[in-house]
Amino acid sequence: MPLKQLVTASIENLSPSLENGRHPVKRVPGEELVIEADLIKGGHDVLTAVLKWRMQGDRQWHESPMQPIVDDRWRGACAFAAVGVGEFTIEIYTNRWESWHHEFTKKFEAEIANLTVEIEEGALLLDATAGRGRRRVADATALRRFAGELRAAPTNSAVMQLANSGELQALMRAHPDRSHSFEMTPPHRVRVDRPAARFAAWYEFFPRSAQGLGDRGSTFRECLPRIDAAKAMGFNVIYFPPIHPIGSTNRKGRNNSTACEPGDPGVPYAIGSKFGGHYSIEPALGTMKDFEWLVKQLKQRGLELALDFAINCSPDHPYVTEHPDWFHHRPDGSIKFAENPPKKYEDIYPFNYHCDDWKALWSEMRDILLFWSKKGVRTFRVDNPHTKPVAMWEFIIAEVQEKYPDVIFLSEAFTKPKMMKLLAKAGFTQSYTYFTWRNYRSELIEYFTELTQTEMKEYFRGNLWPNTPDILPYGLQNAPRSAFMIRALLAATLSSVYGLYSGFELCENTPFPPKEEYLDSEKYHYKERDWDAPGNIKDWITKLNAIRHAERALQLYDNLRFHHADNDAILWYSKVTPARDSALLIAVNLNPHFYQSSFVDVPLEHLGLADGSGYVVHDLLSGNRFQWHGRRNFVGLDPGAPAHILRIER
Amino acid sequence: MPLKQLVTASIENLSPSLENGRHPVKRVPGEELVIEADLIKGGHDVLTAVLKWRMQGDRQWHESPMQPIVDDRWRGACAFAAVGVGEFTIEIYTNRWESWHHEFTKKFEAEIANLTVEIEEGALLLDATAGRGRRRVADATALRRFAGELRAAPTNSAVMQLANSGELQALMRAHPDRSHSFEMTPPHRVRVDRPAARFAAWYEFFPRSAQGLGDRGSTFRECLPRIDAAKAMGFNVIYFPPIHPIGSTNRKGRNNSTACEPGDPGVPYAIGSKFGGHYSIEPALGTMKDFEWLVKQLKQRGLELALDFAINCSPDHPYVTEHPDWFHHRPDGSIKFAENPPKKYEDIYPFNYHCDDWKALWSEMRDILLFWSKKGVRTFRVDNPHTKPVAMWEFIIAEVQEKYPDVIFLSEAFTKPKMMKLLAKAGFTQSYTYFTWRNYRSELIEYFTELTQTEMKEYFRGNLWPNTPDILPYGLQNAPRSAFMIRALLAATLSSVYGLYSGFELCENTPFPPKEEYLDSEKYHYKERDWDAPGNIKDWITKLNAIRHAERALQLYDNLRFHHADNDAILWYSKVTPARDSALLIAVNLNPHFYQSSFVDVPLEHLGLADGSGYVVHDLLSGNRFQWHGRRNFVGLDPGAPAHILRIER
Repeated sequence: MPLKQLVTASIENLSPSLENGRHPVKRVPGEELVIEADLIKGGHDVLTAVLKWRMQGDRQWHESPMQPIVDDRWRGACAFAAVGVGEFTIEIYTNRWESWHHEFTKKFEAEIANLTVEIEEGALLLDATAGRGRRRVADATALRRFAGELRAAPTNSAVMQLANSGELQALMRAHPDRSHSFEMTPPHRVRVDRPAARFAAWYEFFPRSAQGLGDRGSTFRECLPRIDAAKAMGFNVIYFPPIHPIGSTNRKGRNNSTACEPGDPGVPYAIGSKFGGHYSIEPALGTMKDFEWLVKQLKQRGLELALDFAINCSPDHPYVTEHPDWFHHRPDGSIKFAENPPKKYEDIYPFNYHCDDWKALWSEMRDILLFWSKKGVRTFRVDNPHTKPVAMWEFIIAEVQEKYPDVIFLSEAFTKPKMMKLLAKAGFTQSYTYFTWRNYRSELIEYFTELTQTEMKEYFRGNLWPNTPDILPYGLQNAPRSAFMIRALLAATLSSVYGLYSGFELCENTPFPPKEEYLDSEKYHYKERDWDAPGNIKDWITKLNAIRHAERALQLYDNLRFHHADNDAILWYSKVTPARDSALLIAVNLNPHFYQSSFVDVPLEHLGLADGSGYVVHDLLSGNRFQWHGRRNFVGLDPGAPAHILRIER
Repeated sequence: MPLKQLVTASIENLSPSLENGRHPVKRVPGEELVIEADLIKGGHDVLTAVLKWRMQGDRQWHESPMQPIVDDRWRGACAFAAVGVGEFTIEIYTNRWESWHHEFTKKFEAEIANLTVEIEEGALLLDATAGRGRRRVADATALRRFAGELRAAPTNSAVMQLANSGELQALMRAHPDRSHSFEMTPPHRVRVDRPAARFAAWYEFFPRSAQGLGDRGSTFRECLPRIDAAKAMGFNVIYFPPIHPIGSTNRKGRNNSTACEPGDPGVPYAIGSKFGGHYSIEPALGTMKDFEWLVKQLKQRGLELALDFAINCSPDHPYVTEHPDWFHHRPDGSIKFAENPPKKYEDIYPFNYHCDDWKALWSEMRDILLFWSKKGVRTFRVDNPHTKPVAMWEFIIAEVQEKYPDVIFLSEAFTKPKMMKLLAKAGFTQSYTYFTWRNYRSELIEYFTELTQTEMKEYFRGNLWPNTPDILPYGLQNAPRSAFMIRALLAATLSSVYGLYSGFELCENTPFPPKEEYLDSEKYHYKERDWDAPGNIKDWITKLNAIRHAERALQLYDNLRFHHADNDAILWYSKVTPARDSALLIAVNLNPHFYQSSFVDVPLEHLGLADGSGYVVHDLLSGNRFQWHGRRNFVGLDPGAPAHILRIER
């Protein structure tokens, strides 16, 4: 074991740290990153620790001191200004001046008379600091003056007073001797995403369904009314299922039938036809020019487009002939279609991601995203990423974000918990969640505590969807209007990012039993819809999005806290900004059928309210104000108005 | 981000893992090491995971399959046969045969009629396995035969039967296709210590006190009666405080007085005189020849010697003149003595471990230990390691153990918890603990649960000392004989390694108020003692050590489990071997003054006892047998016999 660098202290149990820095944590610009670590060294010298951070590629580090908390644990905080990949490290060194100051103080307090040698030691430290290169001349002069004053001081008390002077302390802090410093290497990375990674409301619709006609599909040029309706409801991301040419071989018919009728438009996820593959537009939607026009229209409205990245090839996809080696071949010469026995997906060929030509295949997948990024798309929802190699996503996302640092990736992984976490660690900006199936109070609290209060909050941003084109959850099947109001409110307030799949605002609730799917799903055919159908909850959704825009507390992700309500049909939680300028208490009646009431505990300290004081809560949903008092108050909620979002008024 | 190796799956949350493998975990030969990890991959292929381990430097890996437990977590186990540094890793690969088998089974069960292509795919896998290089000819022949039989099978049912055959399964397991495997790199290390690292009873005495004379010190040649007495009590490690020449400059007198009387022998920790330093023997103890004779005598008795490694130099140490640059120099030309203001230790100069010549200094410290290792010493107790750089210990221990893999290091770090843990991680085989100050039930349970049931058990072996030459804890000051019996029993049973400082067996209990120290400590003068003084607890200690030797449960470290007793003056715990051939329930009356009784919960499942059955418990201390029944039983303990060690008789 050769002796190389002099290591004076140890850094252990760094937090946050994902697999010892193998994966980056995530932040948005300006969002605080609190770093903690055990900093341990032998001996009595005083330790100084500095948190250092910068964007990758920058030469200069930003620095701020770390503070000891308890039991050798230290804490520091930083924030990144730019979007991209940041990095941080910790530098520690024994602080000779502070060590001297500490020891001298102890001896002075013990009234040891002769401290001549100690005083000279202190003065020599000042001389040495003044003498080190590249110091400001004024500082050096001041330090030499202090050294002289120390030596000339008439009493130990006078020395102590000099040593404690703010000016000297500041000088010595400004010019520390780091000659024996130790720095954590390599630095750990931080993925800094643009603000929309943390705060956004998505609205999903099939562009071909924009007009809600039963006999034909809409085109991109016909999408503006639907887009304007979404904007009016307060959404800011418009998400389209795949817009590429749809295969005709083995095309699926209505309700996933293998018998396709003439005129059936096919499933947008069966990508590729004679009109092209992942670089092309389904002709029924329009041309690339139409697409570019649409992107511009969205931009003009302050909205953005999210595209669906589904790595599925129909048998008609150009890749099948251009790169047959990318697929699984069977002994009879056929290409293996997708299956999950006994289920068959004859309209889709999956790739063989481990084929000999895997590097070209993975690179091609990246190139598809670079192509659409160049077209101005900055958000991709990725279909079923968990059925592809995680290492491929790590590669693709890193490469795309290197060129376009502001690209957001949403992982549509409804799968096992550790795979969902791993995809987030590997680079996905946001992820779908189990929210879709969490209905009862205890399971909501348990799940959202895990999402927002454990290590997951460092890298996994849950984007909440009460429904998707694939999922009409049992809780919404044949459910009343109030159930949709409740689920929309939970999605919009439990996380700072959420989305709705169109039709939700119409409370579409007819299932395809026994599945958790919609009857007559628009995935398979043209669906007739009245976008203003009676009983819709557009006003409710509009109000929710308006409140989200007005209240910064709802724009933060990890500030969710649950509080006690006596009745377990009432979910009772808070969202509060660190400065408490936006402080909300939210009560939700989880029972869509009956009135529920409860005494609730108000977390006064958390809200910055004095004990025993009265305060006004303003229900941003109803507009009502209530005079409350102390820790225990009462809420009663009817399914017709199933929630309060109570703003604390000061 | 260049694409290099095809990574097919991820390994996360490896356990145990200390700072991601920065520090090794510890085991003794044959001790099980259970490895767990999240093994995560995309897609439907069946994953196979193999735990691999070997001693560092070996070419061949041992292997055993890992098993999935729950939620993508896998587990495997290994054990090392040799003493030294072992290593382990995990290799994972998608198992094409098992994937095929899994898919075929599902299709077969779904009664899909035409599986011709699937059968051919299976047969091709057998062919490929038979064709890969370096396979046994018999296996290849058998595999080709099976391929033929698959192809010729008259029904799908016949294929399924063939695929399920034990012979074929075994053949395919024996010759897996690992072409797409992924291995965790680098491997993690395991420090494999000799058995005495985990199971030993230490007895500490000052060789100069062997005869207990007040007017002169004993020599090595006069130590045998004391050694034989220790052996008779059942101890197997004899630990000596430093045996090196003691300095005369600023020598301390009786009770740490700065005024040293003529004839005062000095503190053995103030090392170095005109007779030499750390390589030499204090002349009053004898010569190097005498020392070598003593080591031999101990060996003949089946005992071993532990030496004290105290890096303290008296002003008379040869290093002071040979390597003045290794010390701290003051502006007045003096060398800085040790101090912890306002306390001064004028008889000791500490090293400057960060001096310019640090590499030579650290190497010299290693060389001292190599010197004594060459003399046959295999155990070192290290004095105050926490006041020296941890990196130095990591270096020294690695270098000494590289040459003498069986050397054991005990860390005498009574300091902050994280430093104690770090020293263990950095290489110390065993450590002193806070046991010395843990007296009440709740604090004993809390502390020993941390030691034996958390990650600490992987690297930190607590060696329990109720007293040391420096510490007569408040709990034993002026305490009755029963208090000594209780503390000895706790030390001997809560951990598999413990030690007593001589005098404990005599219940020496006179403090030097207000300190936690002995009055008239033998550190400073010749202490007169009657080693057979009335009221001694030698019989009790002898019995404890005999039980430890007879019961394997007491020789394991991490098998301690606490159980409920109604009375909180009763500590109630079990020690059980995995095979349950040694299964003990231990009840201790923590109150040395009064009789205490309690109902206690018996952990029937843990002991392998049937619910509702009767069983006999045999008190190994009193020899009494009790007929017990079910989960609740009663114990009553008098301070005169303050504990039961109940062996479950089957």
